[in-house]
Formats: sequence, structure tokens, C-alpha cells
Amino acid sequence: MIDRYSLSPMKELWTQEAKYQRWLEVELTVVDALAELGQIPKEAANTIHQKVKLNAKRAKEIEDKIGHDLLAFVRSLEESVGPEGRFIHRGLTSYDVVDTALSLTIRQALEILNHEMGLLLQEVKKLALEHRHTIMVGRTHGMHAEPITFGLKLLIWYAELQRGLQRLAAAQAVISTGKISGSVGTYANVDPEVEQKVCAKLNLQPALVSNQLLQRDRHAQVLTTLAIVAGTLEKMAVEIRNLHRTEIGEVREGAPHGSSSMPHKQNPSTSETISGLARLVRLNALAALENMPVWHEQDLTRSSIERIIIPDSFLVTHYMLRSMTKVIASLRVNFERMKENLESSRGVVYSQAVLLKLIDKGMLRMEAHELIRARALEVEATGKHLKECLAGDKKVRTYLSPEELDELFDVQYHLKHVDVIFGRFFD
Amino acid sequence: MIDRYSLSPMKELWTQEAKYQRWLEVELTVVDALAELGQIPKEAANTIHQKVKLNAKRAKEIEDKIGHDLLAFVRSLEESVGPEGRFIHRGLTSYDVVDTALSLTIRQALEILNHEMGLLLQEVKKLALEHRHTIMVGRTHGMHAEPITFGLKLLIWYAELQRGLQRLAAAQAVISTGKISGSVGTYANVDPEVEQKVCAKLNLQPALVSNQLLQRDRHAQVLTTLAIVAGTLEKMAVEIRNLHRTEIGEVREGAPHGSSSMPHKQNPSTSETISGLARLVRLNALAALENMPVWHEQDLTRSSIERIIIPDSFLVTHYMLRSMTKVIASLRVNFERMKENLESSRGVVYSQAVLLKLIDKGMLRMEAHELIRARALEVEATGKHLKECLAGDKKVRTYLSPEELDELFDVQYHLKHVDVIFGRFFD
Amino acid sequence: MIDRYSLSPMKELWTQEAKYQRWLEVELTVVDALAELGQIPKEAANTIHQKVKLNAKRAKEIEDKIGHDLLAFVRSLEESVGPEGRFIHRGLTSYDVVDTALSLTIRQALEILNHEMGLLLQEVKKLALEHRHTIMVGRTHGMHAEPITFGLKLLIWYAELQRGLQRLAAAQAVISTGKISGSVGTYANVDPEVEQKVCAKLNLQPALVSNQLLQRDRHAQVLTTLAIVAGTLEKMAVEIRNLHRTEIGEVREGAPHGSSSMPHKQNPSTSETISGLARLVRLNALAALENMPVWHEQDLTRSSIERIIIPDSFLVTHYMLRSMTKVIASLRVNFERMKENLESSRGVVYSQAVLLKLIDKGMLRMEAHELIRARALEVEATGKHLKECLAGDKKVRTYLSPEELDELFDVQYHLKHVDVIFGRFFD
Amino acid sequence: MIDRYSLSPMKELWTQEAKYQRWLEVELTVVDALAELGQIPKEAANTIHQKVKLNAKRAKEIEDKIGHDLLAFVRSLEESVGPEGRFIHRGLTSYDVVDTALSLTIRQALEILNHEMGLLLQEVKKLALEHRHTIMVGRTHGMHAEPITFGLKLLIWYAELQRGLQRLAAAQAVISTGKISGSVGTYANVDPEVEQKVCAKLNLQPALVSNQLLQRDRHAQVLTTLAIVAGTLEKMAVEIRNLHRTEIGEVREGAPHGSSSMPHKQNPSTSETISGLARLVRLNALAALENMPVWHEQDLTRSSIERIIIPDSFLVTHYMLRSMTKVIASLRVNFERMKENLESSRGVVYSQAVLLKLIDKGMLRMEAHELIRARALEVEATGKHLKECLAGDKKVRTYLSPEELDELFDVQYHLKHVDVIFGRFFD
Repeated sequence: MIDRYSLSPMKELWTQEAKYQRWLEVELTVVDALAELGQIPKEAANTIHQKVKLNAKRAKEIEDKIGHDLLAFVRSLEESVGPEGRFIHRGLTSYDVVDTALSLTIRQALEILNHEMGLLLQEVKKLALEHRHTIMVGRTHGMHAEPITFGLKLLIWYAELQRGLQRLAAAQAVISTGKISGSVGTYANVDPEVEQKVCAKLNLQPALVSNQLLQRDRHAQVLTTLAIVAGTLEKMAVEIRNLHRTEIGEVREGAPHGSSSMPHKQNPSTSETISGLARLVRLNALAALENMPVWHEQDLTRSSIERIIIPDSFLVTHYMLRSMTKVIASLRVNFERMKENLESSRGVVYSQAVLLKLIDKGMLRMEAHELIRARALEVEATGKHLKECLAGDKKVRTYLSPEELDELFDVQYHLKHVDVIFGRFFD
Repeated sequence: MIDRYSLSPMKELWTQEAKYQRWLEVELTVVDALAELGQIPKEAANTIHQKVKLNAKRAKEIEDKIGHDLLAFVRSLEESVGPEGRFIHRGLTSYDVVDTALSLTIRQALEILNHEMGLLLQEVKKLALEHRHTIMVGRTHGMHAEPITFGLKLLIWYAELQRGLQRLAAAQAVISTGKISGSVGTYANVDPEVEQKVCAKLNLQPALVSNQLLQRDRHAQVLTTLAIVAGTLEKMAVEIRNLHRTEIGEVREGAPHGSSSMPHKQNPSTSETISGLARLVRLNALAALENMPVWHEQDLTRSSIERIIIPDSFLVTHYMLRSMTKVIASLRVNFERMKENLESSRGVVYSQAVLLKLIDKGMLRMEAHELIRARALEVEATGKHLKECLAGDKKVRTYLSPEELDELFDVQYHLKHVDVIFGRFFD
Repeated sequence: MIDRYSLSPMKELWTQEAKYQRWLEVELTVVDALAELGQIPKEAANTIHQKVKLNAKRAKEIEDKIGHDLLAFVRSLEESVGPEGRFIHRGLTSYDVVDTALSLTIRQALEILNHEMGLLLQEVKKLALEHRHTIMVGRTHGMHAEPITFGLKLLIWYAELQRGLQRLAAAQAVISTGKISGSVGTYANVDPEVEQKVCAKLNLQPALVSNQLLQRDRHAQVLTTLAIVAGTLEKMAVEIRNLHRTEIGEVREGAPHGSSSMPHKQNPSTSETISGLARLVRLNALAALENMPVWHEQDLTRSSIERIIIPDSFLVTHYMLRSMTKVIASLRVNFERMKENLESSRGVVYSQAVLLKLIDKGMLRMEAHELIRARALEVEATGKHLKECLAGDKKVRTYLSPEELDELFDVQYHLKHVDVIFGRFFD
Repeated sequence: MIDRYSLSPMKELWTQEAKYQRWLEVELTVVDALAELGQIPKEAANTIHQKVKLNAKRAKEIEDKIGHDLLAFVRSLEESVGPEGRFIHRGLTSYDVVDTALSLTIRQALEILNHEMGLLLQEVKKLALEHRHTIMVGRTHGMHAEPITFGLKLLIWYAELQRGLQRLAAAQAVISTGKISGSVGTYANVDPEVEQKVCAKLNLQPALVSNQLLQRDRHAQVLTTLAIVAGTLEKMAVEIRNLHRTEIGEVREGAPHGSSSMPHKQNPSTSETISGLARLVRLNALAALENMPVWHEQDLTRSSIERIIIPDSFLVTHYMLRSMTKVIASLRVNFERMKENLESSRGVVYSQAVLLKLIDKGMLRMEAHELIRARALEVEATGKHLKECLAGDKKVRTYLSPEELDELFDVQYHLKHVDVIFGRFFD
């Protein structure tokens, strides 16, 4: 991933150095297990621990010669240890190390995302509670529908982010799996007990069965989960961009970007960036799904693309979460504009309340629907308020008194259950 | 979905008739709840139940005029009932009905898939147990690696399909949600208690908060779950196609398709079809992710595409599961060819066992690796067996006795833990 | 594709009947070529022409038995002819017929799209010319930028649609290819001259080389081309939806859809549908790209999915084009609102003109940028017009006279080159 | 893109430094045009040329402060020039520079790909001519079909790569477009003549109409073109992997990778990598299609993702082309294995020739088809050769003499037109 979208601490997790470190951790844990089980000499294990040195430069040198990164890494370790080095990687295949280490990295990456989601949830909650009763117009199809509160909009995000947290947890459970079963998963050259011990030490579940690798349905679940999280963030970003428009002006990013040519511009740039990056996470999830079918016990088609999509998806999702948290934390909410916008459509948002009242009073649904629709067109044509138009309608007057009409045009009618909804989340 | 890939009972679930039936179910459940809560007259509810008639033709007629399917449907119901019909759909917005009904349909569709997965799991289990000890060569990168059993290959599928079952269950939990909260989710015109009652009757969880619709992260989870299931089936299909090849010939589809021009052909056509259809389910999942961001409280961009991708994904996944079950149930396994193929590479599959023995005896990993690699090239060049080539190597002879060499070339060395692995699944 | 999005004449092109008709056309053209070349008896060819009968029901019956649609079709033809029927399909493989027929269908489908694009271009041109000078605000990032005309916006669509026409033509050229080269493309059982003759009669280019099928890069080009066309339509639809919003109100769909609950609603439903369907065409293009790699001389993975994605992409693109043409033809443009919206931001859209003038007069870019930015914030804070704020700035007054300031706030400054741009397209 | 898949000279094209260099080139070309047209002082232009200095570090510093890369870049240029610096970027919007520079970069990137494709075509041609008559079995559905030559397989790739070249050229034509039309494309602050002059100097076509940016159908065409090229390479790679398998062994990568655990392994790793990377290019194309709809005259959703997908697609496609060229140039072809494999199916590949002969002799197609099918099953069951099985069939003997049977089992029957096909490409 390009620097621009790589932030700490996610960034450090996906460097070559960090990868080597994880590989070393797995190799040494295997050495320990082998020694404990008496399958390699205990002294050899001690010597390895004393002498082993991660030499990234040397590993790279060997890789350039032999074109196999894990094999090169193991050779560089052996060189640092001397003769006892031959007990490193004993009975293993590359993917015992690579896939187990990858599980460790992904688990930690998911923890980081989990933490960032928590921070975002806090900000969303705070803003939701603050704007629990901030009245604004609800819009469907871009058109005024009926009144809502800004807090309700935030609460929907809150609930969806919480579902995201649960999905992250489920993904973490499924990826917290290791595999030390040898070239084709038969444990021919490495005892099943080694896998048990290594996984216990690393706090991973051993895979119940494997071939050369961990099956890729696990990674597909992880990346589709990130894509759903990214989708939630995209949805929030699109909403903010829409509310940010000049004509709506109900919210504004706290640190909007400017323009090189137009000094007056204040753009919702962070939200736009989040919108765009969601596409990447989504597409990477698709690649992870494509990676599931592997020929026989292993092939390398998924290897090249996983080097790209797994780090990139985590880095970008992390960047998006962090950015969205900043946007929410510094969002400027213009409740004056919210009020103006709601009123600007001159009462049409109350049309359903009138419809139902007319039905209750005995008018047929279809008739009532047509009647109000005609009056709503009058509002548009004349600039009058819907209440006024209805009050001028003879038929309406036979059904509704002026007082009843007033009641129907009271915004509180729409907000009477807001506290009930909030009560499902917060005390 | 085209007929060719639509099978009962999944097919019947997604017809226009079935959709109307669900809508009616939801509308009537709402009528009941309103009557119980005293919000519409009890007699009106009774009249509705007695008179209401689903008239698909009439609904379609009205839809052609007004271009709104749910609204047309409600009007057709009203017509069938007469004046009391005005209490149908009272205080609801279209999506209260459409989305709640969709949840019901998806839940049932997931149950059907769950059932089909169960059948497939049975067949895979049966075949796995039957071939627990059927020896074959494991292949990585298309090349011979080391011996496995065919049962182990099937066990990997078994385990992955089981994870699929868990994912289906998780998806079912998240989609078993209803929403009766009105136009923008404020319950302005329909009491929260109605939602409680309706959802309880339909055995759904009420959404804790909603706007005009159920949030689409739920549907995205459902469709990405189907895509992962489809990926597992694709993986199985690709494996069968590979083992089916003329040169490998280890399995054959029970009912292979022929060719119009070449009378001798017996093709793994069902597996090829499964391979291809997985692409559709995968892409539809991507569309479901794209559907997550909706402008404000609702827009209709997801509506058109959901009409296509949701039924299609279920129909195709169902077809794939059914087809794969047939393939597995009638798979012809040629263990003679498995044996021949294993032997055809003249012992190179035992190279790692030799490598480790040499290391244990004190040779450096790198040295041992190079030595065996050279002998393996000799196998290829001369047509001799690897054991023979090694036996002819002076250095090898200083490390290994002929008896030791014999032991290393024993296939049982590789299969000693097979029963341990099976024991994790079956008694 | 579901009925809702299938329109004539595209719909008729993709029925089972139409497919059989094309297959018959290809089979008979081959019979003629073989007879002309003396490779089958002329009388047999005559008999075939006289007796052959397309019997869809019978073909389906046979297919249900043997599971191979083209083979079943050929057998049904043979039955209708009698003994001479054996000369039908002589030396061919199924895909000689299937792929050549598919090329014919796609070519015609592209012609239909070409025609629909032409109709859309006419409507866009008409509206562009009508609104050549209709002033509105240009928006970037959803925020007011500088004045444009509505005609310019339409002209951008016009130019992009024209590029779409060129892409359709390029796709048509690449798909107008036939292939009669037998099972693996060697012409072992059918002379190359047959292919020459058949392709000439069908007005196709013979593939220079083929295996069992036409290579799928051709079909991938067709479907990615449709996806680009769909992208253009999506872009137009998104723009219309944005301009249609209550707060903007600059355009309105001529036949907006209503709501079941809110009688006042007038939604840009057709544009929303177009937005959503673009996703399908885009994803199908991806499947077409995935279809390119085929194992050896043929496999059937692409076959199942092509049965779905090729018709669906054409049907949906056709529907989108037709729908967009209606939207444009009946679009209601509210130039009063355009004017009001432009003025609503109180002059900030002229900020760049002032910036440049200040730079020309010797102010540093950065200094001028900061100065105006500060005044723009004043506009927002106070509700005053930018001209007024600038006039109140001492520094500005030392650079600009009141007359100069007036000139910079003249909308005509922005529109002076509109006719130049239009002149590049229309006389 | 990660280093591993970034090769010169493509790599250098996409660095931050190269981007700055292009931006400077565009800015200075604009300065020249403005000076020539008398819109800025000639001496100012001279001063700018003398003093301007690209200071990447300073530009980055400013960017970190203001968060806008192009604006920061322009300020850094201004600083290096002094007061006359204010004439840099005069009347431009960021995207005048960014998009015009991007067109220049993409054009050059396409030229690099074009060059690499040329090198690959040469290798494919060479190998095709060398193996024009190298007989092997053609396979459909993974099963033996009929004889072909290895040269024909290569020729199919050759033809498809040539179509790829044409698509690259078409993409280059559509992207060789510049745009210097100001903030919303009206030329309000920059004369259309400036765009004419700048584009002429840079050898680009000026866009006939634009808003703030070049329309993204152009970039979508570029990226879908790369995806089709990647699809062709994937197809080649998949074929090589399949022919490389232990059981087939007809080709081998010249520099196969080994295994850390199994010293005998020689894997088609380069082809596997190419297979996997194709997924990335394909998905990036989808993102480019998603980038087409932009809100109003510009939004930044496509900006973030374009920073990633455009360089990545070019880098990876370049890497794939380069890798495939090496694979083809060093491919080891084992024609002995090709012969053995062809013979291993004991004559069934000649079944169609027999079928047609029987039909010609008067047998009904269906009857002949069934007869041969039965004999082919006998081949499989008994291990006998098809010719032998047919010779033992009474019915066959009444139709065919032993000599006729011999002729039908002559491989030359299948290859008689190979030179005709090659003659369409090479003299």
C-alpha cells in the first residue's frame, strides 16, 4: 500500500521485518516443541536459541539467488547458528511457518481494527446522544420524506458498526488457526503433537485437517468481513458528503480541504477518500474468494496476490476507520440549516399523517392518497404551505377540523418514539 | 435465473406468486397486531381475513399503471376486501412489508441450503471413510509431492463444508430480522408495539433501529456467505476435474457427458458447470457489498439489482450443492490408477524422508537438500528409481544402510497418522 | 433476465427459439458449403432443405435424455430429415455451430444497442442545444464551484456516449468472427474452405486460428464495452438523481414514481433503477474476463456462466439505454431553481476570478488565496455577499476599483466560451 | 505495488519524483503558452524557466501542512521562483495539471507494455514455428480429444496477443488527451487557445469538452484493456501449468522453483505467479468502471483509488509480460512425452474420423456414434487399442476394409491443414 494510506500501528505489522520476526517466532516455537518431545536434542535447541540471529539482508541475498523467500530465510538462520541450525524447520514445509505466522499477523491486525472500531463507536455514540432530539428531515430517493432526528441516523450507524464488531470477532475466531502438518498435511515428518504444542504456545487452534496450507475459506471470511466494514464506512461517508453539499449544508467536515483554484472551497475530502477506498477493500475480498480453489494440495496462484491484497485490505480499512473517527469527532452540525431545510418543503413531509387520519375517518386509502397528492402538487406549483392547501380543500374540511389539522402538522408527532429507540441501546 | 439452473424447492421460493404470498402474510400479521392493540377495529380485521384475496393478475394490472409493485399489490387487496380494506397496510411504508417478507424468504432459502449441505456432507463423509486408507500421491503445483490418502482429501472438504454450515447459521441469525417502523423508521404512524408483535408472530427479531429499510450489511453477509460456500464447491469441482483428466484418471464422474463430434469423450461436465457458476455467486456478493451505501433513509439503486442477485445466488448455490452431491454420490474412484500414478514418479515422493534422515544423521540441511536434488534429476534423466540412485551415491552410503533406505521408501511412513486425523472427526 | 428488465427487440434475440433458429441457420449454411464443394451429395443437401424442421419440443426431449443441448438439437434435425439427415453437422464439433451462432446473435444485439444509443444521443443533443445557455452552478465535491450551463453538462454526456458508439463498433468488429474448424481447430474433418464459404455467407470473418472455440478475449471485449456504456448511463443517472433532490430541484424526471405511504413523494425512480443495474453489467464484465483462461483446447466452465451473463448484460444495457432515453426526453428542467441555487451561495463562485485579478495586479498567489478564503468564511458567517465582503477589505480596495469588482462578479465572464465548445460538436 | 512485482522501466514511471516531473512539464508548457499568447509577460516566463526548481522535499512539507498535493507542489515552485512565480498555474485548476500529466504517464506506460508485448510475440512466434509440426494430443475438458501440434497452441496465443496489441493501441489513442479548461471546464480563467497550444506541444488531443476532469470512460477503457491482456497471459500460464504436471510432463519451465521440504520438486512457479496476479489487474479494471460516475463536475472518490489501481495495474501487467516472455524463451518442450501421452489413450482420439467415415458409408449418425462409443468403453475396460476393438466388430467390418481402418488411424490425417493455418500468419 502507498504511504498515504498506511498508518501506525497497522503499518508496522505488515513490513518485511515484521514478517521475518513472525517466521522466527514460529520456527523457534517448533524447535522448542521438538526438544520437549525429545525429537531433537535439547542442547541443540538451546544452542539455536543462543545463536540464532535474524539477518534480513542475508536472507534477501539468498532469496535473490534461489527465488524462494521462506527457504532463504531458513538458510540464513541456519548460517547464524552453525551445525545445530539443521534442526531448525525440521520436518516442516514452508507453509507450516508461513501460514501459521500469517494467522498470527491477521489476528493482531483484527485486534487493531477492533480497537479502532471501538474508538469510532465511542464518537458515534457521543454524537448520537448529543443529537438525539436534533430534528431534521428524513430523505428517501433524495427527496424529503418525513422528520427524523440526526441522532437516529447516527444510531443506525452505531448498530451497524456493532454488527461489524461481531463479524470481526467471528473472523478472528476462524483465522486463529495454525498448521504444522508438513508438506501435504500427513504429519509424515512432523508429529501431530508438535502441532498441538506449537499452537498451544501461540494461542492458536490447530487445524483439524490440512494439506500443505490452511484452507482459504478462512481468509475469504476475513476479507469479506473487512469489505462489509468498509461498506459501512462508505455508507457513512456518502451520507456525510450528501449532507455536506452547499444546498443542504447540514454538516461539515471539521477540517475540509480547499481547492488550488477556488479559494472559497471547503470540500468533504476525507469522506470522499473513504468512499473511494471502500472499492479497494471490496475488490480484494473478491480476490480472496477467487483464491479459494487451489489445485490439489497446494498451488501458488493465491500466493502472489495474497502478498498484495491481505496487507492492503488491512491498511486501507484501518486508514478508513481512523479517518472516519476524526470526521465524526470533529463534525460540525448545523441544526439551523436542518430546521430550514425541513421547513423549506412547506409541510409536505406531514402528508402521511394526514393520509392516515383521513383513512381512520373513513376515506378510502386510494382516494385519500390521490387527494393529498393533488394538494402536494399545489404546494409545489404555488409556493403555499400544505396545511394551507388542505385547509382550502372542501372535502378535507368535511373530515378534519382545523385543530386536527394543526395536530397533524406538529413535528413532535414524528418524534414521540425516539427515546424508545435510544432506550434499546443506552440507559 | 434461467430454468436450467433452477431446481425445486428453491425455485418455488422465488416466484412472483411466492413473493405475493409472503407480502400477504406480513400484511395480515400487521392487521392482527393492530387489531390486538386496538388500533384498528377488531371487526375490520375479521372482515379483512374473510374477504381478502390474493389476485396476482389484478395486482400486475395496477402495477402496469402505477409502476409500483407493493402499492399495486396493496390496492388489489383493498379492492378484494372493500371499505375495511383501508386498514390494510395501515401506517406502513412499502419496505416494512417488502423487507420483512424478504427476510422470511431468505431465512427459508438458507434452511434449504442448510438441508442440501447436510446431504452433501453425508456423501462426503461416506466417501471419506471408504477411502480413508486409499493411497494416492499428493500434488503441489501440479507436481508429485508426497503420498496421502484420498480420504484425507475428502476430509478437508468435509471440514470446510462444516465451516460453511456455521457461516450459513450465522447469516441466518443476522437476516432473521423484521422491521415495521414506517417511512423513515420513527414509528410515527405505527406503534413500536406493532413491530414487536409482528416480529414475534413471524419469529423474527425486530431491528433495534431502522430507517426505511433493513440495513444492507445483513444482506451483504448473506451473499458473501453464499459466495464462500460456492468457493468451496468450486474447489471440489476443480479438484475432481483435475483428477478426472485422461493422464491422471483417478476419479470419474458417474454420469459424464459426451461430445457431438467425438464418440469416445467422457467429460467431467457437472464439475465444470459447478466451476463456472461459482463466478456468478461470487460476483453477486460483490454487488451486495456495493448495495450497502444508500443515500439518506432509502434509495432504490439496490432495489433493481437485488431483484436479480438475491434469487440468482440462492438458485445457483442450490443447484451447485445438489449437483455436487450427485457427483460425490456417484463418483467412480480408480485406486489402481492412483497406485500407478504414485509409482510413476519412481520414488521422488520419498525425498523429504531421506532429507530428514540425513539431517538427523548429521548432514547440513543445505548439503542434504542439494545432494537429493541432484539424485532426483538423475531419476528424471535416466528413468531409474530414486532409491537406486541414492543407493549408488557414495556419500549416502556413508550415512544410511540399505535397510534404513528401505524404510524411508515405505509408503506407510507417510500414512501413520491418518487415523489420528480421522479420529478428530469420527469415532 | 427477469421480465421487468427485458424489452423488445432485445428480448426476442435471446430466447431458446431464437437460439435454435441461429443454430439451424449455421447448420444449413454448412450443408450448402459442403454440397458446393462436393463433399456431400447435392441431392442430400436439397433433401435436407426440403425436409428439415425445427422442432424445439423434440430437441428438448432428447436433451433431457442426453444432457447435451446442441447434440440433441442435431439429432432432432436428423429425425426430421431421415437418412440424408446424417449429412447435417458433418465434420463439425458443437462449438463450430454454437460459437458461430453466438457471434451472429451478439452482432445483432450490438446493432440494437447501437440503434438505441443513436436515439439517446438525439435526445441528449436536443436538450443540450436547448440549454446551451441555461446558467447553473457547477459543483465539485458537492459544493458550489463556478457557473456553467446545463447544456455543457449534457454535452459531456453527448461526447462520452459518442465514444461509447465507437467502442460498440470496435466490439462488433472483433466479435463478427466465425469458426468451422472442428473439434480441436485442425480442420481434420472439415475442410478450411467450408469455413471460408460459411463465414462469407454469414458475413463473418473466419478466425485465423482456433481450437474448439473462439477465444474468449473477444467476448471479454464485448462485455467490458457494455460495462463502459453502462458506466456512462450510471453517471448520467447519478447526476439526475442529485439534481432532482428536494434541496436542489433543478431537474425532475417526467414520470416520477410515488410512495405507498407518503402521497407527496415524486422520486427519480428510473434514474435510481439505472444506477443499480449498472452494477450487474459491470460484474458480468468481470465474469467475462474470468472466462478467458480455458484449460487446453476447451473446457465448459465458461459455458454455464455465459448462458447467463451474455444475455443478461445485453438485456439490461438495452433496458438502461431505453430508460435513459425516456428520462432525457421527458426531463423537466427548472431554470428558476438553477438561478436561485447559483445565487444562494452569495458570490463565492466568483472567488477565482478575483484571485486571478489580484495576482495579475501583482499580489502573490498565496497571499491572494488566503485573503479571499478569509472573506469567503465571512460570507458564510454573516450571510453577506462576497462582493460586499471584498469591497469592505482595505487591501482589496488598493488593488481593485469598484468597477473592476463588478466585472469579476458578472456571470457572463464564465460563459464567454460556451459557444466555442458547442461549435466543436454542432454547426 | 510491492517491490517484488515492480520492474524497470515501468517502476520509474510511477514514482513520486516522476509525477512531480510530469507536473512541472505541464505547468511550464502552460507558462510558455500563456507567454506566447501574451497573457502573461514574456519576461516572467523566462524568469520562471531560469529559476524554477523542483524541490520534492519542500513540496511534501507544504502538503503535510495543507493536505493538497498539487497545491503544495505549485507553492513550492512559486517559492523557488519568487514574485514571478505567481504566473505559474495561472487560471488553472489542479486537475488541468494532474489529469493532463496522468495522460502523459499512461501513454508512456502503454508504450512500455507495447514494447514488452512485442518481445513476447517474438518468442511465441519463434516457438510456434519451431513446433509447427510437433504432434501432441489436443484436450477438451481435460480429456484426450484429437491430435494437434504444439505450434498450433502457440499460434492461438500469438493471434490473441496481436489482438491485445490492437487494444493497447486503441486505449492509447483514447487516453492521449489533455485538458486545460479550468475549474469546471468553461475556460473562464484560461483561454481555449492555451489548451490548444499546450496539447499540441505535449502531442495530446485536447478534450472536446470537459468539466473539472477528463471523463473516466477513458481510464476505464485503459484498465479493462490491461485486464484483457492479463487474461491472455493468465490463459497461457494456466496452460503451461497444466502441461507441466507430473502426469503430463510435456513442458517444463526453464527455471522452476524448488521446495523447502521436498528436494525433488520443480514447480511451474512463474506461471503460477502470473495466474494469480491476473486477478489483481481484473479487479482493478472493475474499480476503474466504478470510478466512472462522478458527482457533478468532480468528486474525489476516484482520486484515492486511482492512486493505487492505475500504477498497480501497469506494474503488474508489465511484470506478467516480462515473466511470461522469460517462461516462453526458456520453455523446455518434451516431445517424447507428447508422443507417449498421445498414444497412451490407445487410439480413441481417432474416433471421430471413424464416425464420419461410417456416416459417409451410409450409417446413421446416431447409430455410428453409439457403436464407436461402445468400442471406446471397451478400450478403457480392456486396455486394447481402439483400432483392434473396431476391427473385431462385425458391423464395422461390413462398412470398412482393414486398409480404410488403417488410414483413419493415421495422425497425418489430422495435421494436413497445419501449414495452411500457419500460412495465414507467416510466409
